[in-house]
Amino acid sequence: MSRVVWGLNPVLELLKSQPDKVEEIWLAAAGLRGRRFRVLELARSLEIPVRVVRDFHPPKVPAEARTQGVVAYLREFAYASLDELEERLTRSPAPLVVFLDELTDPQNVGSLIRSAEVFGAHGVVIPKHRAAGVTPTVIKASAGAVFHLPVVRVVNLRQAIRRLREAGLAVYGLSADAEREIPEVDLTGPVGLVVGSEGRGLREGVRRECDELIRIPMRGKIGSLNAAVAGAVALYEVLRQRVLKDTR
Amino acid sequence: MSRVVWGLNPVLELLKSQPDKVEEIWLAAAGLRGRRFRVLELARSLEIPVRVVRDFHPPKVPAEARTQGVVAYLREFAYASLDELEERLTRSPAPLVVFLDELTDPQNVGSLIRSAEVFGAHGVVIPKHRAAGVTPTVIKASAGAVFHLPVVRVVNLRQAIRRLREAGLAVYGLSADAEREIPEVDLTGPVGLVVGSEGRGLREGVRRECDELIRIPMRGKIGSLNAAVAGAVALYEVLRQRVLKDTR
Repeated sequence: MSRVVWGLNPVLELLKSQPDKVEEIWLAAAGLRGRRFRVLELARSLEIPVRVVRDFHPPKVPAEARTQGVVAYLREFAYASLDELEERLTRSPAPLVVFLDELTDPQNVGSLIRSAEVFGAHGVVIPKHRAAGVTPTVIKASAGAVFHLPVVRVVNLRQAIRRLREAGLAVYGLSADAEREIPEVDLTGPVGLVVGSEGRGLREGVRRECDELIRIPMRGKIGSLNAAVAGAVALYEVLRQRVLKDTR
Repeated sequence: MSRVVWGLNPVLELLKSQPDKVEEIWLAAAGLRGRRFRVLELARSLEIPVRVVRDFHPPKVPAEARTQGVVAYLREFAYASLDELEERLTRSPAPLVVFLDELTDPQNVGSLIRSAEVFGAHGVVIPKHRAAGVTPTVIKASAGAVFHLPVVRVVNLRQAIRRLREAGLAVYGLSADAEREIPEVDLTGPVGLVVGSEGRGLREGVRRECDELIRIPMRGKIGSLNAAVAGAVALYEVLRQRVLKDTR
């Protein structure tokens, strides 16, 4: 069964980065100008079949989805393998990998993949079970970022963390009860960040797999951040430290 | 018409911080233990009427809402006035205010209010028109943070920015095309942060009202963050600089 991507930005990103993944494009006939027209042009130049449809009810798209009149059908989302990610890391002076521990909210998973891409991470590792995979909602929430960095899906997240630690990553788990705050920790070397699920946080076994638990400084009374926000803040801190180091 | 809040955390936060706002609590009879039981105890000690319901279909709650069997009916959400916020700022050595420019996604607005509270902001200012107000979905997405810091709703956001600038805030608008990156900017004094809407960013008139536009450092190809994530990262940077200054 083919997968579906909708929305102007995700489809444009998809066409630019992984056109070979696209089986077919559906476009609403109404309002076919500007960046929507760019989708049409781009798809045609890539020799991807396009259907321009007057009565726009593309199959396999939820009724409440905001398609913006743009839908792409994929051959299938292509996860990367851990081998491929590891190989990619050897080519970077300061690898950065994000591990998501059983995040089930597709908005959070998509948002984290987007932030990972924006802040220069080299890949995202997610567990196969009890977690959101790369669904159309995740692709949309990622603003198409899933097509720009490897997403690896593993049966055993602990083993994946262990393997990348052995390959040289210092792995930090985000946890509100950690001792050190992220600005105190040197994150300029090869780093893995582990984000726990909203509500339960990191699983015990995953915590033990980390080199250290670190926390985001907080004030106020609520005392916890949304999982996608917490991950993004930590990713920003990594980039901030690296940029600062480069300019010294 | 009364307003509705659902979910375990938001209702608990509400009962702790603004019990006088609560008209009535509904609880599902099934699974009434642990923190759900705490809601029952707390409400009773506050002399707030509680209904324990076997067949749990609380009115005014959307069918898809994840209530966790806990719903509170409010007298009405109480926005703060700009006067009250300004008065509050005079009592802080380093005030911090977040302005949201026409954000329409209630998840983003709720998430930003939550992050504002967590990173020590003193208030959030939102426009009355073409923007999400404090709805039940916003309250839920804020994890109850709306009850811990003043939310001011204004007819004219530009005027509100101008007024708080005159009161001493240096106001920075987040914009991907700004010259300076946030770590280069001294944010330890009285600061206002303006977050633009997803997609369109800051309105021209609002940009002109800012002392300076600043941007979040980015890598990668996507080149833009979710509005709630961008705001949270800037708020984190403010707190990071302030914590660092305190410990020097």
